[in-house]
Amino acid sequence: MTENFADRLMDAIARKKAPVTIGIDPVYSKLPPGLVGQAGLNREADLESSLDAVLEFSRRVIRLVAPYVPAVKINSAYFERYLWEGIEGYYQLIQEAAERDLIVIADVKRGDVGHTAEAYAAAHLADPDLAGADDLVGPDAVTVNGYLGADALDPFLKVCREDGKGVFVLVRTSNPGAAEFQNTMTAEGQTIAEHMAQLVAKWGVADGLVGKNGLSSVGAVVAPRDVEQAKRIRQILNNSMLLVPGFGAQGLGAAEVAACFKPGGTGAIVNASRSVIFAYEQPEYKQQFGDQWEPAIEKACQDFVAQIRQVAGM
Amino acid sequence: MTENFADRLMDAIARKKAPVTIGIDPVYSKLPPGLVGQAGLNREADLESSLDAVLEFSRRVIRLVAPYVPAVKINSAYFERYLWEGIEGYYQLIQEAAERDLIVIADVKRGDVGHTAEAYAAAHLADPDLAGADDLVGPDAVTVNGYLGADALDPFLKVCREDGKGVFVLVRTSNPGAAEFQNTMTAEGQTIAEHMAQLVAKWGVADGLVGKNGLSSVGAVVAPRDVEQAKRIRQILNNSMLLVPGFGAQGLGAAEVAACFKPGGTGAIVNASRSVIFAYEQPEYKQQFGDQWEPAIEKACQDFVAQIRQVAGM
Repeated sequence: MTENFADRLMDAIARKKAPVTIGIDPVYSKLPPGLVGQAGLNREADLESSLDAVLEFSRRVIRLVAPYVPAVKINSAYFERYLWEGIEGYYQLIQEAAERDLIVIADVKRGDVGHTAEAYAAAHLADPDLAGADDLVGPDAVTVNGYLGADALDPFLKVCREDGKGVFVLVRTSNPGAAEFQNTMTAEGQTIAEHMAQLVAKWGVADGLVGKNGLSSVGAVVAPRDVEQAKRIRQILNNSMLLVPGFGAQGLGAAEVAACFKPGGTGAIVNASRSVIFAYEQPEYKQQFGDQWEPAIEKACQDFVAQIRQVAGM
Repeated sequence: MTENFADRLMDAIARKKAPVTIGIDPVYSKLPPGLVGQAGLNREADLESSLDAVLEFSRRVIRLVAPYVPAVKINSAYFERYLWEGIEGYYQLIQEAAERDLIVIADVKRGDVGHTAEAYAAAHLADPDLAGADDLVGPDAVTVNGYLGADALDPFLKVCREDGKGVFVLVRTSNPGAAEFQNTMTAEGQTIAEHMAQLVAKWGVADGLVGKNGLSSVGAVVAPRDVEQAKRIRQILNNSMLLVPGFGAQGLGAAEVAACFKPGGTGAIVNASRSVIFAYEQPEYKQQFGDQWEPAIEKACQDFVAQIRQVAGM
């Protein structure tokens, strides 16, 4: 029988003792000089050269962090930017991560309805079913935008049930401008983010989605702006995994992150992207490692895991 | 000087006297038997064969409707479903439509923040700037999801200003389940959809976005559930183009559509997808054209234009 996604994720977190995911968000202009100085990778304005550099960097990051973390979050936008060739590379990276026993969260934030949602679920969550592509695996989970309502999720939930995969619905995002919409109060006295959390909780208890740990395959993306908001959303989404972005670089503090976990340090996974993958740019790691960008990333990943382990009380 | 998107769209609508866009949402299982019976296009489970069929169909639909409508809406999901090869085809279709002087609305419903939003704007709205892809043009406008707030739009708005392009922000979608979230009341006594409309109106009046007709490059996707909702949203978005999906197949009536227009039949463009592109499946066209799927699509497009012209009071 196919294992529930939340169970798989919880097990993977427990094995590595790391409720952490690393975000693969490569940007050419921030790649290590040692890498982009190589022949063939050194022309930013050239599609082939810049894409090759971005992919080589991403592959190396995945290999560096694989021993320490249970999951990576790969954001499709950074590959869509290189058109269809970028998308080919994006699917290759999913294979690369899967081969290293990492859980792959595809950060695609799609949201559409009916047949269009079916097409997105086939493209971005299911394992490809077309001869000519059926040796590929899809990611383990995907981020989705719930603005369009339950219809937008249904085709994804079908894949969750049948293939043991998961979704994370955007509830509260980490960007400075999120509050303008997401913190607007509803007539019920909740923020829009909390209202979305309630819908996610409801969608998540449908048949075939709750695992043996009591957690649903339907999780949420939550970057609370303060501890009170974190507690409210944690309570509403009592049976959901929270994917928590924005720690550090985007201003989320340890107290807010701690409030996203359930007692015992379960129920949440915290993402770091730039603070780890571009660690070689930071004075603290630069001083220690100089031009050695790979050890800098490895060390930043280890530091991040240790930090979140402590925050989670694991 | 680059012409404002809303001005370009209004001019194109006036030239064809057709406030109409046709949605390119191809699904293999619905393609005409006369097309999928051809060698090389007849294996649904094979990536290459099914994608070739979907692309050939889409190209022919674009050519059929080009004389009658000012714009097509191409939904990326139906091409993403065929992985990177599908995306290559998707960009080819954008070129095909642009060469026929059609305004291209890329229905991608993206929404992310910061650097990720920049990557999406580069991938899906700007003309590609990378050597190796710089002979391509991007679409004229794109649909975006505003759940993440203004940050998600900013990189797109930069392209709107610099290159005369446009965005349509999701306000009220046409699916049955849309109401659960979008009709929730805020503390101010509006629906969430109306609150989003207010934000869109605010974002749309920023410097460099309003054209000589007084309309903004920032439009909205609006499929109101009743005439009152249509009127309220039309009023809030007084200076925006409304992209109206869902007429016919998805249950939106003539009265709701009429209420989306400004006096004189301006300010809105109505989309039809399945009712036109799969017209050969409908008894009324089947009876008239038999297996001749191309004349059926052409006639359905003409009928749709005539119908909306009347509804708009043009």
